[in-house]
Amino acid sequence: MPLRNLQYPKHPYNTVKRYKDRADYSLSTIHSIFNTSPLLHISFVDPNSDVPFPSSLPMIGRLGSFTNPSADLGEVLDLYLHAYVSSRLVNLVREASNSPESKGFPVTVSTAHVDGIVLALTPNAHSYNYRSATVFGYATLVTDVEEKLYAMQLITDGVVPGRWENTRVPPNKGEMASTAVVRVKIVSGSGKVRSGGCHDDRGDLESEEVTGRVWAGVVPVWTMYGEPVPAGYNRVAEVPAYLEEWRKEGNRGREELAKEAMKE
Amino acid sequence: MPLRNLQYPKHPYNTVKRYKDRADYSLSTIHSIFNTSPLLHISFVDPNSDVPFPSSLPMIGRLGSFTNPSADLGEVLDLYLHAYVSSRLVNLVREASNSPESKGFPVTVSTAHVDGIVLALTPNAHSYNYRSATVFGYATLVTDVEEKLYAMQLITDGVVPGRWENTRVPPNKGEMASTAVVRVKIVSGSGKVRSGGCHDDRGDLESEEVTGRVWAGVVPVWTMYGEPVPAGYNRVAEVPAYLEEWRKEGNRGREELAKEAMKE
Repeated sequence: MPLRNLQYPKHPYNTVKRYKDRADYSLSTIHSIFNTSPLLHISFVDPNSDVPFPSSLPMIGRLGSFTNPSADLGEVLDLYLHAYVSSRLVNLVREASNSPESKGFPVTVSTAHVDGIVLALTPNAHSYNYRSATVFGYATLVTDVEEKLYAMQLITDGVVPGRWENTRVPPNKGEMASTAVVRVKIVSGSGKVRSGGCHDDRGDLESEEVTGRVWAGVVPVWTMYGEPVPAGYNRVAEVPAYLEEWRKEGNRGREELAKEAMKE
Repeated sequence: MPLRNLQYPKHPYNTVKRYKDRADYSLSTIHSIFNTSPLLHISFVDPNSDVPFPSSLPMIGRLGSFTNPSADLGEVLDLYLHAYVSSRLVNLVREASNSPESKGFPVTVSTAHVDGIVLALTPNAHSYNYRSATVFGYATLVTDVEEKLYAMQLITDGVVPGRWENTRVPPNKGEMASTAVVRVKIVSGSGKVRSGGCHDDRGDLESEEVTGRVWAGVVPVWTMYGEPVPAGYNRVAEVPAYLEEWRKEGNRGREELAKEAMKE
C-alpha cells in the first residue's frame, strides 16, 4: 500500500455506473494495470477530420515521473508514448502545443487484461475476470533531450526490464530525430476490476436438470511468453539471464495472478 | 481465401500512413482479428459530455450476419455488442436511433493481438509482432427478438464454441429485458499486421562490439487458457469435451500462430 492512497477525481465522464463495486479510482490500481499492459488504445478526436468517428490507435506506453524517477505506482505519474515524428498523432499534438492557451491535445487512453473466463449456468451470468483502466489527459511533445531519453528508456525497460542498458545506446542522431515522445498529463481516470467465481440465480442453482447438465466454473487466462528464438545475425550464444528471468518470472506471476483472481 | 477478396474503402480517417506495407483492408483479415479477440475497445464521442475526451470502453463483441448466418469472415458482417439495457452506450445508441434521419450512433471499435516481442540490437529497432484492426460504423439497437437471440448466441459461442446449447437457454424474460444488443453497421475499417524477425541497421550489424554483446531475436507471445476450476456448486463431474477441446486446441493454435509470425 502506498504512503498516500491517492485517487483520481470522479467526474461524470469517468465515473463507473454499472457494477459500481468493481470501480477503483486509486492511482496505484490504475497505474499498475497500465504498466503491465503490452499495448494501450489511444482515442482522440481529430479536429481536421469531417467524420463523426474518433480515432483509436494501439500504442506502446508507460507511466513514469521524470522529476521523481523512483516514484512508485501510487504517485502522480505522466504517461509517455513514443511515435514516428510525423505520424498523425504527433502532428496533432504539435499543432495543439502551438496554441499558447492550449493545455495540450486531449486523449483518452485505455487498456484491459482478461484474467479468466467465467462460465456460469446460463449465458447471461457469464462474465470475465478482468482488470481495465482508462485515463484522460492532455498530450504535449517532449522537447527536453534528457526527458526524451528518460522516456525512451522507461518504455524500453517497460517491455523488458534492463533491456536498455543491454542494447546499443544511446540512440544516434537519426534515431533521436525520427522518434517523438509524447507526454500525457493525466487529469482523471478510472479502473474496473472483476474477480472471483461464477454467480448464478437461485432458479438455476435449484434446478437439478440445469446443475446436472451444465459445467460451471472459471478458466484462468494469462499471457505466455515462449522460448526466445535468436535472429540469424545474433552472435550471443546463450539467452541472457535478465531475459530468461523476465520471461519465466513473468509467466509464473501472470499465471498466479489469474489463479488468485478466481478465488472468492 | 474467400470467394471475393472484399476490401474496406480507404478514406483519410482509416488509411494507414506509417509502415504502409503492414496495412490490410481486407474484410477477411480485419474480421478474423476481431473474432479472435476476447475484448474490443469501443470509442465514441458522448454528445452530452462537455469534456474534450472521447469515451473508450472495453466490451465483448462479435461479428456475424443475421441474414446470412453461415457467411464466412470475408463477407459483409455486422458487429454485435451486448450491454446492460440502461448503460450509457445503450442510452446514447437509443437516443441516436430516435432521430429519424440518423444512421445510428457513430462508434470506432479497435482491438489488437501481440504475437511477439522483437528484440533488436538497438532500442529504436525494437518492435512487436502484432495484428491490430479498427472498424468504424453506426450503432443501432436490435429490436427483433430473433436477431437479439442470434446475437446473444453468437457472442456466447464466440467465447466458447458450443457453450450456448450447453447452458440453460433460452434466456428468461428478465434476462431478455435487462440485456440490450447493439448492432454496428460497419462503413470502413483497417488492419495492420507486423510479422517476422528483427531488422537492424548496417552500422549495428557490422559492429562486433554490438553483435557480440546484445542478444537479438524474438520472444513469441500468446494467450494461455489454464485448467478449468469448477464452481463450488458445479455438479458435472468431468470438464466437458467441448470445453477441453476449445481450450487445448486454442492454446496450441495460438502458440503456433505466434511461432509462425516470427518467421521471415
